[in-house]
Amino acid sequence: MTIILNPAKSEWKDLCIRPEIGKSYIENAILDILYKVRTEGDKAVKHYCEKFDGFSPDSLKIDIKEIKAASSSISAELKGAIGKAMANIEKFHAAQLIAEQPVVTSKGITCWRKNVAIEKVGLYIPGGSAPLFSTLLMLGIPAKIAGCNLITICTPAGKDGKVNPVILYTAGILGITDIFKIGGAQAIAAMAYGTETVPKVYKIFGPGNQYVTKAKQLVQQDGVAIDMPAGPSEVLIIAGKDANPAFVAADLISQAEHGPDSQVVLTTDYKDLLSKVREEVEKQTKLLERKEIIEKAIENCRLILFASLQECIDFSNEYAPEHLIINSSEYGKYTGKVTNAGSVFLGQYSCESMGDYASGTNHTLPTNGYARNYSGVSTESFIKRITFQEVTQEGIRELGPDVEKMAEAELLTGHKNAVTLRLKK
Amino acid sequence: MTIILNPAKSEWKDLCIRPEIGKSYIENAILDILYKVRTEGDKAVKHYCEKFDGFSPDSLKIDIKEIKAASSSISAELKGAIGKAMANIEKFHAAQLIAEQPVVTSKGITCWRKNVAIEKVGLYIPGGSAPLFSTLLMLGIPAKIAGCNLITICTPAGKDGKVNPVILYTAGILGITDIFKIGGAQAIAAMAYGTETVPKVYKIFGPGNQYVTKAKQLVQQDGVAIDMPAGPSEVLIIAGKDANPAFVAADLISQAEHGPDSQVVLTTDYKDLLSKVREEVEKQTKLLERKEIIEKAIENCRLILFASLQECIDFSNEYAPEHLIINSSEYGKYTGKVTNAGSVFLGQYSCESMGDYASGTNHTLPTNGYARNYSGVSTESFIKRITFQEVTQEGIRELGPDVEKMAEAELLTGHKNAVTLRLKK
Repeated sequence: MTIILNPAKSEWKDLCIRPEIGKSYIENAILDILYKVRTEGDKAVKHYCEKFDGFSPDSLKIDIKEIKAASSSISAELKGAIGKAMANIEKFHAAQLIAEQPVVTSKGITCWRKNVAIEKVGLYIPGGSAPLFSTLLMLGIPAKIAGCNLITICTPAGKDGKVNPVILYTAGILGITDIFKIGGAQAIAAMAYGTETVPKVYKIFGPGNQYVTKAKQLVQQDGVAIDMPAGPSEVLIIAGKDANPAFVAADLISQAEHGPDSQVVLTTDYKDLLSKVREEVEKQTKLLERKEIIEKAIENCRLILFASLQECIDFSNEYAPEHLIINSSEYGKYTGKVTNAGSVFLGQYSCESMGDYASGTNHTLPTNGYARNYSGVSTESFIKRITFQEVTQEGIRELGPDVEKMAEAELLTGHKNAVTLRLKK
Repeated sequence: MTIILNPAKSEWKDLCIRPEIGKSYIENAILDILYKVRTEGDKAVKHYCEKFDGFSPDSLKIDIKEIKAASSSISAELKGAIGKAMANIEKFHAAQLIAEQPVVTSKGITCWRKNVAIEKVGLYIPGGSAPLFSTLLMLGIPAKIAGCNLITICTPAGKDGKVNPVILYTAGILGITDIFKIGGAQAIAAMAYGTETVPKVYKIFGPGNQYVTKAKQLVQQDGVAIDMPAGPSEVLIIAGKDANPAFVAADLISQAEHGPDSQVVLTTDYKDLLSKVREEVEKQTKLLERKEIIEKAIENCRLILFASLQECIDFSNEYAPEHLIINSSEYGKYTGKVTNAGSVFLGQYSCESMGDYASGTNHTLPTNGYARNYSGVSTESFIKRITFQEVTQEGIRELGPDVEKMAEAELLTGHKNAVTLRLKK
């Protein structure tokens, strides 16, 4: 942890820099995987399963019986919790698709937009050190609400060839049955290009390690859309005088436990808080399972003192954090001033964990400064908006002559002619 | 023009293929331009202006006096037409930003999303064979409505170092004054990385040739967002028995005149129309300025007969055209069935030219099959949606225990701990 006192504005830019992610050194390896899966299909996918995940699958698709059977191994309490989270996420995401009304833009001309689901989408759900069934909720629920026709899941299996039952159970209650036990870049390739078993999709969602991320970037160049570019997860906390140091420390830690490259920043206008939080972090970390990961990430944690909470907000807007926690009873003063952030947590009880799992907001959010130019995943991420227009005879009579003039000024007389012919009639 | 009668469903896939765009052969040249502009700034930009555009600029930024002076060379009629188009585009795009209401997802938990403009955006406006001031309207108006702080324009100058006055006039009435006479990949590089003169932006919009398109794709990997991937412009027309062949031909032609690589497709369930349209195309083309471009594009035009208008719609949904014209009095039956298209024009008077210029819809649309997974540009393209949540003491008491269970099941005990500490208090 580094404590930084009142950095000059000229230093802010450096304080906002995230660690460079090695870009090209894995690119060739990934390109190779993409090419092999594209040309050899299932055969290549199975080869990579064996090579990277250590099991040799008979079938890549998970049997529906296995999905149904998963339920029996999940405790009633966990089922209840997932059910409540699901209801909240549904409520928030269902409110996002507002049908727009047609607009009469000028006499005889009516324009509107219609929400239409992206027909085929693929969700990548990481397995590995944590079985992220919460990510499946965050992606599967808006996909269902949007009305996507085909929703597929790729998720890595363990060495025993099994996928975590909580993921299967969650897929089951979402009604998603096309689940493939494929992880890594080969999963992205299979969804992007299609294989004998895995259907090709039009958009791919979901977090992953650097291989998955790079593969998503690369298939994007081949016409597949992706949710957003991704980097390590991050939190920036703005803590006021009245913030409980134990709460602040716990929130820093919960971000840190995602991985050793997690980005964790505390800002405050109250100097005493810095050392108190530092003590708390050390105390709490000792008691946690993922202690080593946390310690690694916390090493790079910055605790920064600013002159005021307003200055903390200014810095945060420049940093553009994925998660922003404003832990101050005065948060109402600053809420309206947030311009760059993925998701904002207000007050001492709004810890990130609430939004990560169950409060209703989406946890798939822009990292690495992308909060400046991207939104998090929402129901809109699963639809296109198609525009329609209806021009009547009166409409073209009124506006046609203007279109003729503009087309002529752009030297596009064919465009003009399409109007002229209609006006003559 | 190729006439295709009742293609079997198995042939549809091939009929939907767009010509492959050479991908990698220009990539190295573009990477070189990006690197030079990134490291040498204005010096490199000026070098490329001289090399590619044939003029040596003293200043890259256009003087405010020049913007003001442009007005005097524009006819009152054209000004009137631009004014009417602007009003329609504003009306349609202003209706797109609906403020969402907060949602109480469960007791003590309130979540909402807020629309926040992307602070800095750059618009690329092609010059060259046609001065596309209409594109400036289509990008500048939603940028203004969204409330972007900094809106810059890059547009190539001619050999005389001058930018088309209609573009300057249009920028002037939009209130955009940061205009740089830079074209091609060097313009994209300047906006993506910033130079001494050109400010760095967070998102780049606008069409362009293959160099511009490739540059946009490449800077996207460096953290800059782009509006969408682009390919040659395209139209698919569905014409019914009652469609006027002259109108249909004029619409095919107006698409064809964009460039020799324009994609132009006619589908119908009325065989006689095919030859009538072909005759009309030949007749009308002769009279037009951009005859050679049109003839080149029309060469690859496909006129396809299907068994019914429903089958035309099915094919169109598979093709996913940028522009879809349903020229039939029965369009009402099919409007609801469109699932993949950028913008749809209904009935005989809704020619594409109307939407290209003035009806109110945006003309920056997904091409090359991207209508399956992307929307056209809208006011939303210029904003991010930031989520907020407010969890009260009651909120965490109610939902906290569920979050604890879920975090535990994902083996993220740090996440659990952040809730546990608060519940204990």
